[in-house]
Amino acid sequence: MTLFGKSTALYDEWEDEGVSPFFPVIETNRGHHVTTAKHGDLLMFGSCDYLGLSQDPRLKQAAIDAIREFGTNTYGAQLLCGRTRLHDGIEAKLRSLSGKESAILFPSGMAANLAVISTIASDEDVILCDRTAHISIYMGSWLSGAELRTFPHNNVKKLKALLRKEKDRRRRVILVDGLYSADGDFAPLKEITALAGEHDAKVVVDEAHSFGAIGPNGLGVADHFGVLDRVDAVVGTMSKALGSVGGFVLTGKEFERELRYLAPSYTSSRGSAPGVAGASLASLELVEEHGTELRAKLDQNVRFVIDGLTEAGLNLMRTTSHIVPVLIGDEHKTVAVSNWLMDHGIFVGTFVHPHVPTGEGRLRIGVTSTHTQAECAVLVERLTEARNKFSL
Amino acid sequence: MTLFGKSTALYDEWEDEGVSPFFPVIETNRGHHVTTAKHGDLLMFGSCDYLGLSQDPRLKQAAIDAIREFGTNTYGAQLLCGRTRLHDGIEAKLRSLSGKESAILFPSGMAANLAVISTIASDEDVILCDRTAHISIYMGSWLSGAELRTFPHNNVKKLKALLRKEKDRRRRVILVDGLYSADGDFAPLKEITALAGEHDAKVVVDEAHSFGAIGPNGLGVADHFGVLDRVDAVVGTMSKALGSVGGFVLTGKEFERELRYLAPSYTSSRGSAPGVAGASLASLELVEEHGTELRAKLDQNVRFVIDGLTEAGLNLMRTTSHIVPVLIGDEHKTVAVSNWLMDHGIFVGTFVHPHVPTGEGRLRIGVTSTHTQAECAVLVERLTEARNKFSL
Repeated sequence: MTLFGKSTALYDEWEDEGVSPFFPVIETNRGHHVTTAKHGDLLMFGSCDYLGLSQDPRLKQAAIDAIREFGTNTYGAQLLCGRTRLHDGIEAKLRSLSGKESAILFPSGMAANLAVISTIASDEDVILCDRTAHISIYMGSWLSGAELRTFPHNNVKKLKALLRKEKDRRRRVILVDGLYSADGDFAPLKEITALAGEHDAKVVVDEAHSFGAIGPNGLGVADHFGVLDRVDAVVGTMSKALGSVGGFVLTGKEFERELRYLAPSYTSSRGSAPGVAGASLASLELVEEHGTELRAKLDQNVRFVIDGLTEAGLNLMRTTSHIVPVLIGDEHKTVAVSNWLMDHGIFVGTFVHPHVPTGEGRLRIGVTSTHTQAECAVLVERLTEARNKFSL
Repeated sequence: MTLFGKSTALYDEWEDEGVSPFFPVIETNRGHHVTTAKHGDLLMFGSCDYLGLSQDPRLKQAAIDAIREFGTNTYGAQLLCGRTRLHDGIEAKLRSLSGKESAILFPSGMAANLAVISTIASDEDVILCDRTAHISIYMGSWLSGAELRTFPHNNVKKLKALLRKEKDRRRRVILVDGLYSADGDFAPLKEITALAGEHDAKVVVDEAHSFGAIGPNGLGVADHFGVLDRVDAVVGTMSKALGSVGGFVLTGKEFERELRYLAPSYTSSRGSAPGVAGASLASLELVEEHGTELRAKLDQNVRFVIDGLTEAGLNLMRTTSHIVPVLIGDEHKTVAVSNWLMDHGIFVGTFVHPHVPTGEGRLRIGVTSTHTQAECAVLVERLTEARNKFSL
């Protein structure tokens, strides 16, 4: 895989030594507690379930109702015969929540990115992409046939220079994450959308980790900065804060038919299973009604964790969100710390190359609105111990 | 979308005239009956639910149990914290059913194709791909960086010539569907795997429409021809005969770690939701136990439908399977026939460009094992009427 990185050497080493923290098999999960065969009961602080909704009884019931009514799968692609009134209802709800004219439900956020990028950009165009953007944004860019140029993470000055340089292209398409999944920081969307306006560029924002959790209306980082109307396409997912599975694109009418009739990851891949669609629809309704209070609770936990870990002297990179990276650096050390935490009852994500740059191994903490303050305190305590033990 | 086809003109016309047969919103479905707001009750003959399992109470119950136990989503990617014992169990069951050393569960068949192709092929290699192969095989090929060459559908002579021509490449990778989704015919896998042996090529077969439904063990077209051990990677999906959602790769140990640790559509996309995984596991168990009788019933229905429609003088192309295309040709006529059938209580798939070549519009009938013979007779009767009405 030339484009994706090739060597599994580090992972092989950990596998062979029996210390790989990856692919833990979760035997049971409930609330913030999971059990694995290897470590027993663990307090889950590595998840993307930012509002705790994957364990909410209302989503469960909606999923169960949908399965009872529609079965365990639809009959085919949405184009042909796989579009139930639940799928239709999700799109209607997304339109009303976002104010965008078109909402298109995909089986995953990755499928949504592949579709929207290869629809908006083609071989006459240039894509200007934040270097730290999600891999699915790169995949969509490669499939689009457009020339791909990257700029250093959140470097608006470099983006501006690229926009000037590329002024003769048919189209300039700026691609960024709203909230960066391994860093926890926001894209400066006020500046980016202003630049896009000056330089007649399209802006696509992947709000996978922010939709539901960020912004006064929970619509993500563009909502947070008040520039949602200046973003040409928002990509979101049900699989993080919304506690279900699936991706979506919120955009205007310009690209809707092309996305629905021509994008293979829409036309030629199965849509959400009925149970998944049922949970997604219930989640959107729940977030519409209770989102403000859930986000307030999330913010409170985030502040508690960030303050505690900062006080402990840990390097949290540039985070300002519920994604709290703890930079370790060396990959072996990262894995050692992660294993030590699991031995001491805490589960956090382990991010090493190729998912982050070499030498920038990190733990990734996912704070949720449903963690109790006592649970957050345990996390801070254990990480403080780890800091002392491993001289972090 | 330069690579995928650009014009929605035909679809726009049908939308504007209010005659588009696409995106019907299914209000209810049960067994082979769906209702849409526009057409009321329809007998479903356009589905990919070849063994009728999406409506099976055992799958429903397994999905419901999984949701009750694990919630409406996992906590993250399988790499980090999204792998439950259900996901693990599916892979173990796939290994034992297929005899392949490695089984890797993806969120979709498309995700599986993107991963396996870009893992096996890279920029030093050449891909030799059947021209009619599924679009996700093309997408995987483009992402791999390998040179992509195509051969005419099922033309083994041309494939042989290409293999000779490309003998100095690091690797030759042959990509085919087992059963072609819009044509209903099999790849000649005996000849193809023999050629691969002679020319030291890898073979990847997409068994999306055949896994579960074809072969003495239900493992697809490679199983049917007795050459499963000569195929380097099988791609399958839960979303057709298995009545759930998800994709998988069955392969040897050579590529497993690369697929699990480096392929973005595995590492950086959410795995199956717990309910979906529960249904998938139950489905594999059910097909293991009852597959032979389900496939015998399917074959019986297929023979009845193919015989009836052949006798009616319809052009079924080269089908020998549960996918029965009825070639119409002109796109407008295809849509008109499809609408007439819906007006008369029958739902069939409508395939036009870019999903099939221009001028080769067709209806796509999906026969299932759970259709009654009376239902199959109604289908044949209506299509015979359509043939007379539209001079097909």
